[in-house]
Amino acid sequence: MTGVKHQKWWGWGVEGIGFDPEGKPAFAPFVKKQIGLDVSKPGIPPKFEDLDVPAPIIDGGLREQLLGIVGERFLLDDDLDRIVHTFGKGVRDLIRIRRGDLRRVVDVVVYPADETQVQAVVDACVEADAVLIPFGGGSNIVGALEPMPTERRTVVSVDLGRMAKVLEIDDESGLARIQAGALGPQIEEQLGRRGWTMGHFPDSFTHSTLGGWIATRSTGMQSDKYGDIADIVKGLRAVRHREVLALRPLPSTSSGPSVREMILGSEGRLGIITEAWVNVHRVPEVREIVGYFFPDFSSGLRAMKEINDSDAHVTVSRVSDANETQFSFATQRAQRGVKKIVMGSMFGYLKRRGWDLDQMCLSYIGFEGGRRYVKRNQAIVKEIVKANGGIVVGTGVGSVYDSKKFQTPYIRDFLLDRGATADVSETATPWANLQNLYDTTTEAARAAFEKARTQGFVMCHFAHSYHSGACLYFTFALPDTDAANTYANYDLVKRAIQQNFMDNAATVSHHHGVGSEHAPWLDQDISVAGTKLHRVLLEGADPGRNFNPGKILHDGKPGVAMHSSDAPLPGGVPGTPEV
Amino acid sequence: MTGVKHQKWWGWGVEGIGFDPEGKPAFAPFVKKQIGLDVSKPGIPPKFEDLDVPAPIIDGGLREQLLGIVGERFLLDDDLDRIVHTFGKGVRDLIRIRRGDLRRVVDVVVYPADETQVQAVVDACVEADAVLIPFGGGSNIVGALEPMPTERRTVVSVDLGRMAKVLEIDDESGLARIQAGALGPQIEEQLGRRGWTMGHFPDSFTHSTLGGWIATRSTGMQSDKYGDIADIVKGLRAVRHREVLALRPLPSTSSGPSVREMILGSEGRLGIITEAWVNVHRVPEVREIVGYFFPDFSSGLRAMKEINDSDAHVTVSRVSDANETQFSFATQRAQRGVKKIVMGSMFGYLKRRGWDLDQMCLSYIGFEGGRRYVKRNQAIVKEIVKANGGIVVGTGVGSVYDSKKFQTPYIRDFLLDRGATADVSETATPWANLQNLYDTTTEAARAAFEKARTQGFVMCHFAHSYHSGACLYFTFALPDTDAANTYANYDLVKRAIQQNFMDNAATVSHHHGVGSEHAPWLDQDISVAGTKLHRVLLEGADPGRNFNPGKILHDGKPGVAMHSSDAPLPGGVPGTPEV
Repeated sequence: MTGVKHQKWWGWGVEGIGFDPEGKPAFAPFVKKQIGLDVSKPGIPPKFEDLDVPAPIIDGGLREQLLGIVGERFLLDDDLDRIVHTFGKGVRDLIRIRRGDLRRVVDVVVYPADETQVQAVVDACVEADAVLIPFGGGSNIVGALEPMPTERRTVVSVDLGRMAKVLEIDDESGLARIQAGALGPQIEEQLGRRGWTMGHFPDSFTHSTLGGWIATRSTGMQSDKYGDIADIVKGLRAVRHREVLALRPLPSTSSGPSVREMILGSEGRLGIITEAWVNVHRVPEVREIVGYFFPDFSSGLRAMKEINDSDAHVTVSRVSDANETQFSFATQRAQRGVKKIVMGSMFGYLKRRGWDLDQMCLSYIGFEGGRRYVKRNQAIVKEIVKANGGIVVGTGVGSVYDSKKFQTPYIRDFLLDRGATADVSETATPWANLQNLYDTTTEAARAAFEKARTQGFVMCHFAHSYHSGACLYFTFALPDTDAANTYANYDLVKRAIQQNFMDNAATVSHHHGVGSEHAPWLDQDISVAGTKLHRVLLEGADPGRNFNPGKILHDGKPGVAMHSSDAPLPGGVPGTPEV
Repeated sequence: MTGVKHQKWWGWGVEGIGFDPEGKPAFAPFVKKQIGLDVSKPGIPPKFEDLDVPAPIIDGGLREQLLGIVGERFLLDDDLDRIVHTFGKGVRDLIRIRRGDLRRVVDVVVYPADETQVQAVVDACVEADAVLIPFGGGSNIVGALEPMPTERRTVVSVDLGRMAKVLEIDDESGLARIQAGALGPQIEEQLGRRGWTMGHFPDSFTHSTLGGWIATRSTGMQSDKYGDIADIVKGLRAVRHREVLALRPLPSTSSGPSVREMILGSEGRLGIITEAWVNVHRVPEVREIVGYFFPDFSSGLRAMKEINDSDAHVTVSRVSDANETQFSFATQRAQRGVKKIVMGSMFGYLKRRGWDLDQMCLSYIGFEGGRRYVKRNQAIVKEIVKANGGIVVGTGVGSVYDSKKFQTPYIRDFLLDRGATADVSETATPWANLQNLYDTTTEAARAAFEKARTQGFVMCHFAHSYHSGACLYFTFALPDTDAANTYANYDLVKRAIQQNFMDNAATVSHHHGVGSEHAPWLDQDISVAGTKLHRVLLEGADPGRNFNPGKILHDGKPGVAMHSSDAPLPGGVPGTPEV
């Protein structure tokens, strides 16, 4: 009706698309072996009728005002829309939805047509002392979208979905002005028609927006070339109470502490981002992803570092550990014909060379540019891969990566439907610490599995090279052996991993943001003096606490749940709470 | 006595080094022609005895406390040290020193040995309600060092000069931990001994420090490769009242609005930076600067853009306009022998090709890396230069650039000694706007010269390429035909240039910071909503206004001088003042 499509209310992606184990014969045995789960039983998707959605809290005057601004068609307060706009897609969100554990649901959803309407909505809400939560693709997994459980005021979700246009391209500067509500595919489609790309491809690409990327400091897979969203965004506009923050596109500036960088990562707390100027690039002549195998993860990490130090320029650098490599094989379609023979004989060859195939690690490197340039970069990379004991698999595996890259979250839903929990934790650290971080984190996860007396699985990949370090991305799963403990068990593992990041020179999150999920770790991540500066800025700029309150800052009040759940927190609240 | 060396109290650089026109026969005629100034008369350097330095305002208790912290040798309150620490090296500073127009001079200078002493100094000062102004190399040119003229409290200058060590190098990650008081040469010397470079070479390199670079968002000449200081700094520590802000070195993070980016550009207002983790790089096999000539500035700009779009990677990209090219020739030593013949025949050749030598523009491009890599990049650049009508001059001119690059400020002092004023204004803007910005700014300067009825000179260079734009750096000079009007005339020109940046999609400063000089333009640069966020952060984090108050934020109170001068402001205070 509004013309804005949303993800499933209970899981990732759009209705009708999901993970299908059909034709992937290795999948069921893999899951059985790793977490003891039988995936042959059919999944039970939740039913919306089972939910007991609380009535909206909204005063007639504000509702009338909002109606006057956006029009009847673009104000929704039916239960389904309210539920869709209350949650992100974090595993905590999905578990709770499946349990009907709703708490504070947003009261009304508005779909402004343009910045003028956003301004009118913001002014009306602040003046009525309502809460504003901006909504993009709803893919957030750190609890940045849900109202605080204790919120007594009206909560208005501002869905930017109608603001999805590329407004302007500055062909000479390589800049595009794009509305904040545009989803990844909407952006690339509009830019692509004119020969441009933004080059920002996070895993959430199909279901996340420019505004969301900025608000959470997103990173895309091609970050080695295009940079993080913080590098890509050169100017922006954000609506605050009775004013618009307007930052013109500038390649670089020394005009005091960067206000652009205050909005990046602000998760709705400093205003509602309406549009941004971003770097765009001409679609390159050649764009290739090449696959490689390494005998183990350590040699893969060493190769990534040497590539980073070399004169080669790559767009993607990624290595899966042995577990993630096995997972990749297990979720692939059964291979047939020539491909099967080629892969089979490659494995035979590697075995004869003395490889332990259980330790083998799959790697992808991306290349872009003119043909000669790509060729030269590939030659440098090949030398380094070989020097580290690896081999070139070729672009065949690369194209598998290309087609599969956005599919992993569907597997999580498939597992949830069958009673297993899976989640991710990602971080970044200097090169010298990568191996240690990998070792200690996988060990911390395993110790947590043991403590929870459950058969868990953890896998990891390296991605996003920078001069001084990179990102490690962990995925873990555990079976639901005892429904009452699932949540506590999950929490135990998640916390063990995050705490290990803190104890080992790594950040709370490389590109997923803070929300309420990561807030308790910030004191350890950026020091207490750092979170104080956050507090000074966010509370000072929003004294009425109207803009997405409760996110980023850790309340530190025992008894008030920081997470979207108030399930007992096994380890106590980490960090140094402020009173 | 403290072991920390300072620049001249009255000008740039150390005593005994200055610009010498001897052996540069083209210099005097050039200055005569451009601004009508006769430079043959000897300059009159100011005498310290002529200054009337006000007595320090300091209560015995605080002085005792500070003495107890740093020791007698490292607390100075003699007039010379106090003057040295009161001013930067902006032309306003230097004119006022020469006039003996001192106003509020810092009361005492302390030289802490380490972070513990910095913490003790900060705590003592805040608790005694004194003002703290950190001091690095004293090269600031935007009025970021001088106490506010109305300041009635004790002003303590915290000189970081004793904290100049490279503390640690993480060889595996390419990171170094360096104390904030280290000057450029101290850093490169310590890193170089171990085969590393930071690659940050601002024009102020010899007289500026790491802490100063961070506090003002500095950019170095090799920024095309190494990035701005904001890209180079990965972690840092800053002392605040009874706490240390500690940001560990991280390649990238999404832990909310970047606190690192709050400290970058904070000019002492959020605390005293004591050390930082910075990216360091192995000294490359080849490091070359190649000179080129273009027939005019426009073709030079086009070539820089095409290089940026190409697969070539360069470290420096720079083009001088015709005036700056002539200035370069005029400040060069007279050439002899083969070099003279070569240059002579080159000019002859260009004339025959139809070049107007008065429009000719000198360009420098830097290359680094392995030998083959450098060669390939040079080949791509050569093609682009030729396609835009330019020619390769070779590395000879490049080495002139290398040796001269830090000398220009001495020429300003030479001119000041002889009664002419020279200053710089630099900015950044998207590629599409560079030519317009160049045209309008030179025109605005010329109109201002005319309005002031003076024979001024303006020149410009392009530098610092980014994907979406670049920096333009303007230098202007005007003669002191009527001493009473000098200051007003200078102000008229400076303001005309800065206002033109604001009116033409450019920033108030690309890499010189804000201080008090640029503060009045920030409302226009980052919007009123942006300066409000500055205010929320800076005032909220320092409610007692103890940390370098009065900088970055524009008071907007008529009658209170924002600049270090209260000379009449011809155009009124620009920007939208806040009441």
